[in-house]
Amino acid sequence: MFKIKILTVGKIKEEWLEQALSEYEKRLFRSCKIEWVLTKDDQSLNLLCKKEPFFIALDSKGRSFTSETLSTKLSQALEKQGSSLTFVIGGAEGIEANVIKKASDIWSLSPLTFTHQMTRFILLEQIYRALEIQKGSKYHK
Amino acid sequence: MFKIKILTVGKIKEEWLEQALSEYEKRLFRSCKIEWVLTKDDQSLNLLCKKEPFFIALDSKGRSFTSETLSTKLSQALEKQGSSLTFVIGGAEGIEANVIKKASDIWSLSPLTFTHQMTRFILLEQIYRALEIQKGSKYHK
Repeated sequence: MFKIKILTVGKIKEEWLEQALSEYEKRLFRSCKIEWVLTKDDQSLNLLCKKEPFFIALDSKGRSFTSETLSTKLSQALEKQGSSLTFVIGGAEGIEANVIKKASDIWSLSPLTFTHQMTRFILLEQIYRALEIQKGSKYHK
Repeated sequence: MFKIKILTVGKIKEEWLEQALSEYEKRLFRSCKIEWVLTKDDQSLNLLCKKEPFFIALDSKGRSFTSETLSTKLSQALEKQGSSLTFVIGGAEGIEANVIKKASDIWSLSPLTFTHQMTRFILLEQIYRALEIQKGSKYHK
């Protein structure tokens, strides 16, 4: 069982997002536990990041991959970190420069800017896709 | 008023997707009319594309942009096409090779693979973001 912690800012206000996230959390139920840590503002997120020994920051300017490569990178990171991994999604102001410097790696989901709410869902879908690619299932073809 | 037609395969089954799309269509209401043309399978989509004189295909291997550049490209394309534009999102099998050859341009939303349902939402949000960037609003900062 993998454990993935996702640190980000804010409450979920959109009902559609709650439904979308819950659908993919259900799909991940048997293979990966998702822990959301939602902070009240950018400052609290930056403080939390400073306490994380290993985390992958998401930033549009980070390293970009195909889903197949992301699947391999995710597996390698999970193996290296004893099956637990932390991702950080910046708030409206992005992740503070001195926090991003501390990140173990910076990944990009797209050169486009997304709302951080959308990013939560896209990340979750890609984690599910990555694990399905490892299994060789029909979800990713 | 702009008109954007989006051709893609399939019905909307996910309630969250319907809500997410409807939220962004409401936001676009005053500036852009979105017309969805949903086909029953990949084959029907390919046939429809052949009748389109000008369309932009979405493919993970297409040209990728930041949201700012996409905003400029979208404005230019809308101006060139008399305020109307067509996008095509491929089905599970992607867009047929001889149809993609006919595309006026191929844009990528990410090198990652998304479900075509997600792609609908991401495209719609980027259209809204692109128009807000042109207006200089606070949505994109």
